[in-house]
Amino acid sequence: MKIAVIGLGIIGGSYCKAIKAHTDHYVIGINRSVDTARQALADGAIDEIGCRESLGEADLIILCLYPQACVDYITENGAAIKKGAIVTDACGIKRAVCPQLQALSKAFGFVYVGSHPMAGKEKNGYAVSEATLFEGASFIITPCGADEQSVAKLEEFARSIGFGSITLSDPEEHDRMIAYTSQLPHILACAYVLSPCCPHHKGFSAGSYRDVSRVANINAKLWSELFLENQTPLVHELDVLIDNISHLIEAIEEGDRERLEALLEQGHQVKQMLGE
Amino acid sequence: MKIAVIGLGIIGGSYCKAIKAHTDHYVIGINRSVDTARQALADGAIDEIGCRESLGEADLIILCLYPQACVDYITENGAAIKKGAIVTDACGIKRAVCPQLQALSKAFGFVYVGSHPMAGKEKNGYAVSEATLFEGASFIITPCGADEQSVAKLEEFARSIGFGSITLSDPEEHDRMIAYTSQLPHILACAYVLSPCCPHHKGFSAGSYRDVSRVANINAKLWSELFLENQTPLVHELDVLIDNISHLIEAIEEGDRERLEALLEQGHQVKQMLGE
Repeated sequence: MKIAVIGLGIIGGSYCKAIKAHTDHYVIGINRSVDTARQALADGAIDEIGCRESLGEADLIILCLYPQACVDYITENGAAIKKGAIVTDACGIKRAVCPQLQALSKAFGFVYVGSHPMAGKEKNGYAVSEATLFEGASFIITPCGADEQSVAKLEEFARSIGFGSITLSDPEEHDRMIAYTSQLPHILACAYVLSPCCPHHKGFSAGSYRDVSRVANINAKLWSELFLENQTPLVHELDVLIDNISHLIEAIEEGDRERLEALLEQGHQVKQMLGE
Repeated sequence: MKIAVIGLGIIGGSYCKAIKAHTDHYVIGINRSVDTARQALADGAIDEIGCRESLGEADLIILCLYPQACVDYITENGAAIKKGAIVTDACGIKRAVCPQLQALSKAFGFVYVGSHPMAGKEKNGYAVSEATLFEGASFIITPCGADEQSVAKLEEFARSIGFGSITLSDPEEHDRMIAYTSQLPHILACAYVLSPCCPHHKGFSAGSYRDVSRVANINAKLWSELFLENQTPLVHELDVLIDNISHLIEAIEEGDRERLEALLEQGHQVKQMLGE
């Protein structure tokens, strides 16, 4: 296949590197900053620096841009895409992009299959991209009306570059689950490090500080977009969390050991049941 | 030195193994369940299974019991301790144990130096103890009026078995900082996994779920004691956290991108400043 990767940040760069490490596919890299594209070419992460015209050669196009930027990019460049090519994205929210990309696929004659690679780092940009970023990670596919053959093709591609499991979902379920599994921990991490204690933690901290605070090193612009486009499920999960914290606070304030133990034991049981 | 380790759980067991791995000290293991002590002897983690009488031979006694159990143990067995021996504990809270152990040290003629090894796991018991558990970890010492020589001796001992840094503190500061660095992440983890979404996370989750939820696999009995004995600093930190989360919720609910970005950027800046 000829694969065009649009946007060479941590995700796009890692796609390119993983494709070159695992497959014989030809990779066309398209990026706003030419310096980054040149670096990717020098690294052997891409075979060619592409432009709008290159889209016509690609069998698979992977959009690794911010959510709204994906929609804007296809709106502007969709006419250059080969008929029948598969287009996917890597957006962390789906209701805000899938319906629009699906509509654009009909207008321009390509096949849109949504996806979300469940991997990342607390740092951003091409410089921290890695061929192994997706190793063993979950790959979520939101088919959004695409034909089974195209969905199967994307799934096979994901497995071929190292993803460990494939989850089929729809935009609603995806966004509800991601609010919990990914967005909530990012909100928590930021709220956590804003305590006046944080700058003084060294010498008093260990693994639990490190783990909860890790993703506070956040890309504020990207995550603001992700949070605001997923307002309802996210605020719901935050409310559930605050409720659960409040029950624990009450038990602690009242010195109610029995209730406190029971609440903590519930947490323990969930993890045990999940085998974690 | 002859060192007596009281309580062979994850912390006590790891002390024994680290001492045997790094030093020539003779280790006496004392444990309520004899089976565990026999296992430790078979593993070479201890040189001898001890009893009350063995306390008289020990130059250093490390109490690896629950907080109140440390006080009870010394109240009952303090008379058997050699005059001038150093006694330390491993409790995760200090105001609730240090004054009492300090008073007992005066009554019985040993030297009490409080300490807290900043290491642990999301599992408990001798079976998960490891010689490397303290490798590079922080060792907090609360001298509690002990002479400088004894404090220096405990510090040297901690370095000799692999601890990476020593922090000198007092019970008040210790408990305030630990409420933030350790207790808060444990409360959060439990509150987090109590969401109805949690049992369905697989296929939708990655590192941020794993990190925030890790310590929810909690020892409910131990941590209830730690939380209840540190009520005021812990509830204060929980209130600070809920305030910070609430500001983020407000910005999300109001669709206030500028404020949301500014709040997230503050989190990012804290982590940048700390070089994390």
